[in-house]
Amino acid sequence: MSSNAPRIAIVGVAGRMGRNLVAAVEQDAQAQLAAGIVTPGSSLKGADIGELAGLGRLGIPAADSLASVADEFDVLIDFTMPRATLDNLAFCAEHGKRVVIGTTGLSDDELAELDGYRDRVPFVFAPNMSVGVNLTLRLLETAARALGDEGYDIEVIEAHHRHKVDAPSGTALRMGEVVAGVLGRSLKEHGVFERVGQCGPRSASEIGFATLRAGDIVGEHTVLFATEGERIEITHKASSRMTFAKGAVRAARWVSERPAGRYDMQDVLGLTEQGG
Amino acid sequence: MSSNAPRIAIVGVAGRMGRNLVAAVEQDAQAQLAAGIVTPGSSLKGADIGELAGLGRLGIPAADSLASVADEFDVLIDFTMPRATLDNLAFCAEHGKRVVIGTTGLSDDELAELDGYRDRVPFVFAPNMSVGVNLTLRLLETAARALGDEGYDIEVIEAHHRHKVDAPSGTALRMGEVVAGVLGRSLKEHGVFERVGQCGPRSASEIGFATLRAGDIVGEHTVLFATEGERIEITHKASSRMTFAKGAVRAARWVSERPAGRYDMQDVLGLTEQGG
Amino acid sequence: MSSNAPRIAIVGVAGRMGRNLVAAVEQDAQAQLAAGIVTPGSSLKGADIGELAGLGRLGIPAADSLASVADEFDVLIDFTMPRATLDNLAFCAEHGKRVVIGTTGLSDDELAELDGYRDRVPFVFAPNMSVGVNLTLRLLETAARALGDEGYDIEVIEAHHRHKVDAPSGTALRMGEVVAGVLGRSLKEHGVFERVGQCGPRSASEIGFATLRAGDIVGEHTVLFATEGERIEITHKASSRMTFAKGAVRAARWVSERPAGRYDMQDVLGLTEQGG
Amino acid sequence: MSSNAPRIAIVGVAGRMGRNLVAAVEQDAQAQLAAGIVTPGSSLKGADIGELAGLGRLGIPAADSLASVADEFDVLIDFTMPRATLDNLAFCAEHGKRVVIGTTGLSDDELAELDGYRDRVPFVFAPNMSVGVNLTLRLLETAARALGDEGYDIEVIEAHHRHKVDAPSGTALRMGEVVAGVLGRSLKEHGVFERVGQCGPRSASEIGFATLRAGDIVGEHTVLFATEGERIEITHKASSRMTFAKGAVRAARWVSERPAGRYDMQDVLGLTEQGG
Repeated sequence: MSSNAPRIAIVGVAGRMGRNLVAAVEQDAQAQLAAGIVTPGSSLKGADIGELAGLGRLGIPAADSLASVADEFDVLIDFTMPRATLDNLAFCAEHGKRVVIGTTGLSDDELAELDGYRDRVPFVFAPNMSVGVNLTLRLLETAARALGDEGYDIEVIEAHHRHKVDAPSGTALRMGEVVAGVLGRSLKEHGVFERVGQCGPRSASEIGFATLRAGDIVGEHTVLFATEGERIEITHKASSRMTFAKGAVRAARWVSERPAGRYDMQDVLGLTEQGG
Repeated sequence: MSSNAPRIAIVGVAGRMGRNLVAAVEQDAQAQLAAGIVTPGSSLKGADIGELAGLGRLGIPAADSLASVADEFDVLIDFTMPRATLDNLAFCAEHGKRVVIGTTGLSDDELAELDGYRDRVPFVFAPNMSVGVNLTLRLLETAARALGDEGYDIEVIEAHHRHKVDAPSGTALRMGEVVAGVLGRSLKEHGVFERVGQCGPRSASEIGFATLRAGDIVGEHTVLFATEGERIEITHKASSRMTFAKGAVRAARWVSERPAGRYDMQDVLGLTEQGG
Repeated sequence: MSSNAPRIAIVGVAGRMGRNLVAAVEQDAQAQLAAGIVTPGSSLKGADIGELAGLGRLGIPAADSLASVADEFDVLIDFTMPRATLDNLAFCAEHGKRVVIGTTGLSDDELAELDGYRDRVPFVFAPNMSVGVNLTLRLLETAARALGDEGYDIEVIEAHHRHKVDAPSGTALRMGEVVAGVLGRSLKEHGVFERVGQCGPRSASEIGFATLRAGDIVGEHTVLFATEGERIEITHKASSRMTFAKGAVRAARWVSERPAGRYDMQDVLGLTEQGG
Repeated sequence: MSSNAPRIAIVGVAGRMGRNLVAAVEQDAQAQLAAGIVTPGSSLKGADIGELAGLGRLGIPAADSLASVADEFDVLIDFTMPRATLDNLAFCAEHGKRVVIGTTGLSDDELAELDGYRDRVPFVFAPNMSVGVNLTLRLLETAARALGDEGYDIEVIEAHHRHKVDAPSGTALRMGEVVAGVLGRSLKEHGVFERVGQCGPRSASEIGFATLRAGDIVGEHTVLFATEGERIEITHKASSRMTFAKGAVRAARWVSERPAGRYDMQDVLGLTEQGG
């Protein structure tokens, strides 16, 4: 671990995402695992956070409040619930910490509250911290630009576990939007979300979506560009929450050296300014 | 080529399927290419059927009637149009020939007329002569039987070219029916053909279908069995009409030694009697 | 949970495989989680085995010896180390328990010792308990039998994580052996494990192997049967150790009603007696 | 067809690639099919080049020399043999034509001779005219740049038909070189072309290659970037020679408006100047 590696605290180390975050920090030579927090009253307070994560003993007992570890970390990673996240953000603003937020499901009011911290604390807020998904969006731009006028049909296929309640996935829709944006189309007009019965031949400008739901699939997305004679497929497969955890650690390292501001993963990955 | 290889005639050698049939017979050491027929009046009458198929000269000029080559063949392969096919079947019944029919789109009357020949001529009639598709149906039975009660979600995915007008494909539906049949379900009740918006978690008994339409995809079908921790995927990909052509040649060899009767590909492949 | 569901004990609940086993028993309505054992001296003794597995509190504290929970279980599941497994097997033989063993790496002596228990205790011993892998082997037999003489090329592709030290995987080799066995070939003679440079066209009888090593891939195997015009692909993908855990629980239920004997997963799944 | 669409002549219309070129020009609204040439003495001289290509009559009889159709075309497309191609290039230089050359297997002397025309005639020379392959190379650059230092393992998988005599394919090697170039590695040092037996864990810097040979696979290439938790796969699948034919027609349109020079597909597709 390099000597100026930021010291990381993780909220919710007893949860599934928390365990992945612990593992991801441990694996990253440029980040330092400093503290882990569990809910007040958990039977796991004081348990070694390495053993909790199945990594063996790391010598860091789980705390049950941010305040009790305030001197020990530089950046907090938080994938919990909206209310807790906003409280933690307030704490970090007061104590000069930085924050990486992967919490989802914030209401409009909560989003506004979150945004209010953009001048007071450096934080990254992104619904999907996967490096791969964010790169994939960039690749889709390039592909759509090169193939858009040349008769390639575009289809988006996604697969998720049986518990997912909506379709297509938010990420699939975003992929479709990126492609549609490059081509001057809109999903509202050109998105095709079902094909059943005598639906006629495919139109050249439609963007089709296909959805699979089965088993424990963490998340797979493919965008297909096909014409007579060839196909290009750009695929992202998440195999575990580690992909989000690793993106979060990368974001933590990155935000540890930024001024106050609200950032997203395109900022972290340096994909923003490169254009198409 | 073995000495008792049946002599094969092909109707429609100027068409795409006909060219594939010529190539498939040529490749088969146990079948003998004997004649090719084009529509009366075609500029291609007399052209070498090997050159027509892009195989180089074979020394067999295209004829423009079955009668003119009646002495030269044992089995006729016919992937043309319903009316022509029935006339050819009549001719073959009178002249002691056997027939392999891949023609589709027969009306109920035409099907009845075809069935009327079952005591007079040995013929194979099948909408999909692909060996692989027929084997796949067998594999699906075995898989459904082994996994059916063990919490595996089942999804059928198919992809076809942009010109296909219906969805899901007939083959995808048949795959679903085979699986549903083993499990005592019906596609009418358990088939899910679209998932859009807040559709809720997947039910355990549903059989999902997803459809892609793009480019020149000849035909791809996958049946997915997924549970927590694993997936089994059984996939068939047709890459050219050769798959149907080769199945037809296999059927021609097989039917050359059968008594009068109407047969399908399960008979040809010997998959019928093995049970599940 | 049904009232006569066997009561299951799991050794090694602090390890990765142990946690998956806890989750798999919990999910199975016909099995009852009864006890979990950690190594003597672990800081996790007394911890709730549900919390250890990330499932929330289950009210079962981790024990640190089999003897201390001897009255509480019917079947032991053991994926630990050879010496420990043999000691546990001895304990179960004395106390009228049944055992499911997924431990690997036994020496020939240890295998002989294990085999010595076949008249004294009902146990399942299998290196790969995945239902899917065992089914896949069956499907491969059927496919090889149907396609073997018809000019289909056979290739085996496997992908595993970056830490795997051998290639091809044992499961890939076993798939190849199953196919070769049906076709009267041997991997020694017909297996092709590398293709580099000017290696010439493929021979019809070879069985090719291709190996990928990357990231955290748990284990993916595909057997491809391809000829001109079509491909059949039979694929197994393990997405987590849950697949092995679930197979183990299925084995535990099955063995709870058998007489003394040594069994494998083909017995458990009822795939043995069906022939090809 | 637009009125200033370039008039295209195709050499070798009786061959497989020639037929695909005829179909590709016919499908392109901005190109005009003007002439087709067969080898002197072919039985197909005078045959309609549309019927030869299986497209129905187009009213263009096959010629058997370039000279006999010299007034009828603007751009020649040539996928034949080195010597014939160089003679055709000489003819076009003298007659103010442009040329698209997909011929492969030129010796160093022949390459030098070809290069000698760069000041006298506008021509595109490229071993792989597929738009998709050339785009894929661009996407690989972007991906390698974004992921290179972040612990992603890179593997290249390719599949081709049973007749291919070398491995890995030239395109697979080129993909590997592009990635290696971005990362400052070399295939000579970091390429891994076989993994057999106890080969140990994967090194972080190696670039693995896996090769499949089976059936009639036209050409499939995937580059996999995998780390703990996710994979990105960038895949190109050629389904027919149409992909090369369409790239050639796109090159023909493009070169019809260029000054004398030797160009490649990166020029045609405008991918050259965009940087990484």
